[in-house]
Amino acid sequence: MHELIGYLAAALTTCSFLPQAWLTFRTRDVRGVSLGMYSVFTLGVALWLAYGVMLGAWPIVLANSVTLALAGTILGMKLRYRRG
Amino acid sequence: MHELIGYLAAALTTCSFLPQAWLTFRTRDVRGVSLGMYSVFTLGVALWLAYGVMLGAWPIVLANSVTLALAGTILGMKLRYRRG
Repeated sequence: MHELIGYLAAALTTCSFLPQAWLTFRTRDVRGVSLGMYSVFTLGVALWLAYGVMLGAWPIVLANSVTLALAGTILGMKLRYRRG
Repeated sequence: MHELIGYLAAALTTCSFLPQAWLTFRTRDVRGVSLGMYSVFTLGVALWLAYGVMLGAWPIVLANSVTLALAGTILGMKLRYRRG
């Protein structure tokens, strides 16, 4: 039971960045998106990924690879569109 | 070493929501903030919290309590300010 909750939790927190990435890509409205948040969050997720690799914990590696790609994409759009 | 990386990762991903909450509180600009993201993310973090409680894993409980409070606050502001 707790394993199911854990996998569902991981799936939700990972996939949640998809609608944000899509909204930002579509609207290019990044004024309300915090640069501080996505800088610190992306770095934190990269460290989670390193932690998972060190432990050989593949669920942590997989979930954080996807989250890193999505959060990194949002961070990149924030940096790019705030100038445009 | 890997424990240090893990705690640092947890601290960064947890605290990263502070600048977003502050920016949204200050500007009330929620157009670029995804309702889908904060709905799914807040639910996911609540499940992480339940998972931590089930396992008696207090670092998971602590980190996700703080993240739940911050993400829930951003979700609440998104719902409130989009009408205003």
